[in-house]
Amino acid sequence: MKTISGLSNPTVKYLRSLRDKKHRRREGVFLAEGLRLLTDARESGRLPQMLAMAEGRDPHPLLDTLIAAVEDAGGEVLAMSEAALSKITGKDNPQAVCGVFGEFDTGLDRLDRTAAPLFLAAQALRDPGNLGTMLRTADAVGAGGLVLIDDCADPFSVEAVRASMGAIFTVPLALARWEEFLPWLRGGAGGQLVAASLRDAVDYRGAPYAAPCFLLVGNESRGLPEGYEMACDLRVTIPMLGRADSLNAAVAGAVLAYEALAALR
Amino acid sequence: MKTISGLSNPTVKYLRSLRDKKHRRREGVFLAEGLRLLTDARESGRLPQMLAMAEGRDPHPLLDTLIAAVEDAGGEVLAMSEAALSKITGKDNPQAVCGVFGEFDTGLDRLDRTAAPLFLAAQALRDPGNLGTMLRTADAVGAGGLVLIDDCADPFSVEAVRASMGAIFTVPLALARWEEFLPWLRGGAGGQLVAASLRDAVDYRGAPYAAPCFLLVGNESRGLPEGYEMACDLRVTIPMLGRADSLNAAVAGAVLAYEALAALR
Repeated sequence: MKTISGLSNPTVKYLRSLRDKKHRRREGVFLAEGLRLLTDARESGRLPQMLAMAEGRDPHPLLDTLIAAVEDAGGEVLAMSEAALSKITGKDNPQAVCGVFGEFDTGLDRLDRTAAPLFLAAQALRDPGNLGTMLRTADAVGAGGLVLIDDCADPFSVEAVRASMGAIFTVPLALARWEEFLPWLRGGAGGQLVAASLRDAVDYRGAPYAAPCFLLVGNESRGLPEGYEMACDLRVTIPMLGRADSLNAAVAGAVLAYEALAALR
Repeated sequence: MKTISGLSNPTVKYLRSLRDKKHRRREGVFLAEGLRLLTDARESGRLPQMLAMAEGRDPHPLLDTLIAAVEDAGGEVLAMSEAALSKITGKDNPQAVCGVFGEFDTGLDRLDRTAAPLFLAAQALRDPGNLGTMLRTADAVGAGGLVLIDDCADPFSVEAVRASMGAIFTVPLALARWEEFLPWLRGGAGGQLVAASLRDAVDYRGAPYAAPCFLLVGNESRGLPEGYEMACDLRVTIPMLGRADSLNAAVAGAVLAYEALAALR
């Protein structure tokens, strides 16, 4: 373990810069914070290239295991002041350990349509918390992956990684434009595309879901473009009994996912 | 309409102070931001005591309607610089209109157990976004209300109000300690208390839900205290097929709520 000091140390600056998407993309890495999240990563076979922690941290067996694993794999382990760690994480009370991970491949060909009956997809999802929550739900329903279509929030942002509760490390993730996704889906092993919709839709309960089933939710404000919905094989709607006309996007995805799961299991 | 100027104007300071729970509680009011949210409020019969907007805002028929309604009701309408509005909302790009509403009564006796088959409840829910999302879901399933048990996030925080997408104005909300909630539930018209649980639980699908049914989710990290679960009439579990052992709290509440709704409608 190496100790670094000062707030303007180049490594502290490098780590801090990874809160910006531009820098993450250039470096091909992302940050994950907290011992629980880093332990989830380790247990999923993912180790950080670099591990940073506060000096004088209370010992913890999971932290010891993590440090040993990172060092065994040739990664770097750094101790620094709490102030430096706060600068990196942007929090007054930093979670006292954070790691730098290499970004994963996010091509559509990462998805194996025979691996699971269900896949989640989101189009132009803008909130990183919603995105992370969808990853977490995808893990919970045993989905074969999450497809992020068009301009979504960055799944490698600290907020999305945190909300995923470790699912960023386990759920196959693919990023694609619609013009790329649709031909991919229609080719190869095929798949049923199901839109969460308010237009010309059947009730989501008892709808004819068929594996491999891709459940697609749209942008938080605008929903799905009409043309996208019309290109889907099935449009399903969730009853809205109150005065609002939509659910939170991550909530809608989860309600649909559990219904489809029950039909497809 | 009155125009106020300067960033240190007492009204600007007063509005800014309402981002703090302590000040909200002392004044008995809360803030809601954005024309859509304020229009939802108006359509639900709730008008702000005070309406603040940026000077030189583009005209909008919904804004005109809102201003007229607030003035008719004897409320105050204020125009100020964008900088002042930014100071209040804490955002670089303020939503250009915000309102001050009187807090609602949040006693348990606000809830009418004959009004709906389903009620939502959360214990020690800490995230204001999750809280607002549960309000939004409660509206969507036509729930008779949301009960916040023990120390939850403040439902009148700007974040919770925003995430509720207007449901803060329509869904009856009650705040209670567990020691107060349980006797209330067991007395009067009664009610079935259902815990989202990992212990000694039946599958959430096809569970024997009975109206009035109160669906209870626990804290984001710890779930429900075991004693609370044991005091419930029914413990239900949502299948977790991945490596994580829980869903986002607001997601879990919604998956249960839609299942119970289908059973009870």
